[in-house]
Amino acid sequence: MIKSIAVDMDNVLADIESHSIAWYEKEYNIKILKKNIAGIPEEEIFPMKEAFRKFLFTPGIFSTAPIVHGAVNGLLNLATKYKIYIVSAAMEFPLSLLEKKNWLSVNFPFISWRNIIFCGDKSVIQADYLIDDHCKNLDVFKGKAILFTASHNLNIKHHLRLNNWDEVIKYFKNEP
Amino acid sequence: MIKSIAVDMDNVLADIESHSIAWYEKEYNIKILKKNIAGIPEEEIFPMKEAFRKFLFTPGIFSTAPIVHGAVNGLLNLATKYKIYIVSAAMEFPLSLLEKKNWLSVNFPFISWRNIIFCGDKSVIQADYLIDDHCKNLDVFKGKAILFTASHNLNIKHHLRLNNWDEVIKYFKNEP
Repeated sequence: MIKSIAVDMDNVLADIESHSIAWYEKEYNIKILKKNIAGIPEEEIFPMKEAFRKFLFTPGIFSTAPIVHGAVNGLLNLATKYKIYIVSAAMEFPLSLLEKKNWLSVNFPFISWRNIIFCGDKSVIQADYLIDDHCKNLDVFKGKAILFTASHNLNIKHHLRLNNWDEVIKYFKNEP
Repeated sequence: MIKSIAVDMDNVLADIESHSIAWYEKEYNIKILKKNIAGIPEEEIFPMKEAFRKFLFTPGIFSTAPIVHGAVNGLLNLATKYKIYIVSAAMEFPLSLLEKKNWLSVNFPFISWRNIIFCGDKSVIQADYLIDDHCKNLDVFKGKAILFTASHNLNIKHHLRLNNWDEVIKYFKNEP
């Protein structure tokens, strides 16, 4: 039977890290360097503590996110061998729902609406693999958990880590 | 461990059947009687064949849906014993995403965003029970499938059927 991979959106497909840093610089005129935010939780990377949530609730923010390098080719590659589900914990940010759906339609047009899931808690998702940048999602997942590297998760040690889409493609080449 | 129930929205929580019939009468000045649509697929209940899809794509239609009789008390009752997830195959209708989320917030304020899932294909959902009015969802579900009665499913014989929220409450009183 064909195996399934659940793929997170933020920081796996959509480069929310770079997007939030660019947004912060524009809003507050302060440049955040990636080397200075290694291992720091996302909501603490900005000197203005409430800024990250402000960013997440900004209308249009998800529809203008850049794509993570290699994500389109990476997903196209995985889709030749696996059933792909895009799973985003978008429910906390209701305005993001339509933006995220449209962003996927524009940037990943080969992903059907049938294979997109917006949820709160990902423990309800059933798949063979989950690629995600957040421990809270990977820890409750019953299949094989894969941590996709983002600055905020650099100190996490208890999950298989893949650093970029090239590593994802290489990893799944050797999987059944 | 506390068991989980996935609960469909349309025709289980939101009375889309009555809502679409009322909409059709207003739009086309033709009254559809429920006794005449028993066992007929939803997309065929209206003489104007494209009308049901037009209804589904009407802005505001999901935010104005009436509540299925007994659904609020029913869910409150189940929530005392089970973990509840609301699972709606909303992804085909992107405009409905925000409307459905807001409708739930207004009418079922005790349901957290953490427990809401909007998807395409429900086969990816993992729960102990699924209450749904559509066979296509129940047939691929790996837990216990419960058919919630709607006019369109009256001829379905191969799932446990519960006719209304009183029957749902009674059924789960005797479940572990």
